[in-house]
Order: sequence, then C-alpha cells, then structure tokens
Amino acid sequence: MATPPVKVYGPPLSTAVSRVLACVIEKDVAFELVNVNMAKGEHKSPDFLKIQPFGQVPAFQDETISLFESRAICRYISEKHSEKGNKGLYGTNPLEKASIEQWLEAEAQSFNPPSSALVFQLAFAPRMKIKQDEGLIKQNEEKLAKVLEVYERRLGESRYLAGDEFTLADLSYLPNAHYLVNATDRGELITSRKNVDRWWEEISSRASWKKVVELQNSPPPASA
Amino acid sequence: MATPPVKVYGPPLSTAVSRVLACVIEKDVAFELVNVNMAKGEHKSPDFLKIQPFGQVPAFQDETISLFESRAICRYISEKHSEKGNKGLYGTNPLEKASIEQWLEAEAQSFNPPSSALVFQLAFAPRMKIKQDEGLIKQNEEKLAKVLEVYERRLGESRYLAGDEFTLADLSYLPNAHYLVNATDRGELITSRKNVDRWWEEISSRASWKKVVELQNSPPPASA
Repeated sequence: MATPPVKVYGPPLSTAVSRVLACVIEKDVAFELVNVNMAKGEHKSPDFLKIQPFGQVPAFQDETISLFESRAICRYISEKHSEKGNKGLYGTNPLEKASIEQWLEAEAQSFNPPSSALVFQLAFAPRMKIKQDEGLIKQNEEKLAKVLEVYERRLGESRYLAGDEFTLADLSYLPNAHYLVNATDRGELITSRKNVDRWWEEISSRASWKKVVELQNSPPPASA
Repeated sequence: MATPPVKVYGPPLSTAVSRVLACVIEKDVAFELVNVNMAKGEHKSPDFLKIQPFGQVPAFQDETISLFESRAICRYISEKHSEKGNKGLYGTNPLEKASIEQWLEAEAQSFNPPSSALVFQLAFAPRMKIKQDEGLIKQNEEKLAKVLEVYERRLGESRYLAGDEFTLADLSYLPNAHYLVNATDRGELITSRKNVDRWWEEISSRASWKKVVELQNSPPPASA
C-alpha cells in the first residue's frame, strides 16, 4: 500500500509554510496542502490549536506524528526520507550536517528577524492597511545589510552556504528572500551583492521553488 | 591517546555561551573555556571572525570542525557524542528527535525573542548604563506571557517539553529563564505559572546547570 500523503497545514503565501513546501518537494514526498483560513481565524480554532498550540502556521502531520515549527518539520522530513528525492538535502555525514545546521541557525537567528520585519512592513502591511513603521524599516534594513555582508564573504568562498551542494541551509532562506526581491523595493539588498545574487539566482531557479511560487499564486484549496 | 578537550569561545555570562556549556557538561565532554573579551572587541578581531563570521559568541572547535550558533553546536555535540553522558539528550529515535526539534525551535522562535529582549532591558541595560525602553519592556512582557501560556498547558500534560525525559529542548530555555528569574523583577512570568514553575525548578536544579552558574560567577580565564 502506498504511504498516504503528508499533510501541510497553512497558506503557501506564509513564508514558514512555503519553507516546508520547498522541502517536501525537494524530497519528492507526496503531500496534501490543507488550507487554514487565517482571515477567518481558523489558526486559533480549538482543533487547530491541538496540533499547533501557538496558533501559527504551518502544522504538519504524517502517519506517525504531528509537528509544528517549519525548520523542525524540514529536519524531520529530510531525516525520515533521507533516501528519497534530494538525498543530500540534510547532509550525508555528521560534518556536512553540522555545517548545514550552522547556516540553518544563522538563517533563523540572523537573517530571518530583519528580513521578516522588512517583508512584513514593506509587502504585507500595505495590503493589510497597516501603517508602515519607518523607524523599524530603517533599523532592519541596516541590520540586514550588515548580515548580508557575512553571506557575501561566505558565498565568495563556497558555492552554497554549507558547501558544494544545495541543502536545507540554502532552502530556508528562499521564502523571505523571495518576497524581498519580488514584493518590495529593497531587492537590491540581495541583488546588489555579487556573490549573494549569484547564489540567489541559483537557488530561486530550482524547480522545487518555482513549484512553491506556483502554489502561492494558485487559489487556496478548501479549508480543513 | 585521549581526545583533546573541545574549545568553547566566549564568556559564560552570555546566554548563548551558557547554552553550549550546559550541553557539553550534560554530555560529559571535556571542554576548555576560551575567554573572548568583548569589552575589548576581541569578538570583532580578524582571527575570531575566521571562526565566527558574525562576530558573536559562542564559537566552538574540536579536532575536526569549527562551528558557530549555540543551538547548532549543541546538536553537533549531542549527535557526535550520542553514547556519552546524558544519552537521551537529543533523543534515541526519530520520533523523540522530532519532538525535541519542535520545542527547540519553539525556544528559538517564540521564547527567545521576548525573553532575550526582557533580559537585556531589565538586567543588562542598567549595568551597561543604557537607557531602558519602557515600551519594549511592556511589549515583550505581554508577548512572553502569551507564549508561556502555551508552555503552561504543555507542561501540564508532559513532565518535560519533548516527553518524559530532560532533553536539549528543555536545556535551551535555561539561559534566558535563569536571568529572568534571578536578575530581573519579572521572574513571576515563570514562577507564577504552576507547571512552568515545577519544570523550571526541575531543570534549573540539575548539576549541569549549577555548574554553568558557577562558571558565570567565576573570574574569566586568560584571553584567547
């Protein structure tokens, strides 16, 4: 009997949901996208809170476990399906894995906070008719510029962040970098840096990420 | 020949350094603490930037690798030394590990931002003669209170965050929770919640954490 598809809960427009989608597609794992209508507050419903107690997206289920937190879900999928799809996505030995973890954490701790803040302020706030905070924008732009200088140096000595291959460490940057380049006027933070831009072109043109962008541009499926 | 001790770079007073120290001690891995005099800017020196390109602490070295990012270092140590010290610290099967990763990420994404901000504003800013930002304090106190409600429920159904055993998922909360309880007047955020307080008492009284607090209270070793 074929394994039933894993379930990914949440709108693909969410950066954290799209991180998980990029991972399941890279790993060639069959998935079902379950819509969570956040405008209707479905992410705060008692049933959803059972699988995501913080009331956030994404949540994830397969035949053995329910999980939340996009990067934890990506690690689980990559480890469980190590022999499927992109086999090196989470490394093939402890040293590769350590390097991947290092740059995955750097994404979570150094890149994500300022890039998320910018994406929210510049791309989402206007659509949600929330007043932009110019001070926050300036502060996070400066912070992100500093952080990206570290990546510019790293990507001058290494094709991908953790080494010669595309891994989870690169994948995890796609969601925020995508909006920064395509939905704000600060894409130059990425594209004006030679090595970061070369890397960005390479990772964003992967078939997996193109598929995620397609899902982001598709109408949502029926709700859970 | 005995393996040389691993090197942990940075002052134990740093929450991220103390996270790594708690881990090496739990895993019973011999370590050498290498001081980085941040007041003198040693974390921005060219030599240090070679092993920690963001100019932050901690950095880590053993005979095969240099690493940065405290949670990535903890994962590496726990995986490499899976048969030493606390063997269950990073789980003993994929499902345990997935649950640990989930709560470790929740620490990094949901607990760390507001608790770090509070610890900085309430404990460190006064010592560094930096003006406290009352708005930030209020905002992060509210955020953390909400987050801790999720933990209060979780710890009502489970002894530790990821299950019946103390793991990396719990360990990672120690540094910020310690300062919150012992160096600010907002310790009630932790201690007023029955299950969180029971858990906090349990994890903070471990021999490993007591040893870390001792290191925090010792004079620094000579610089690198």
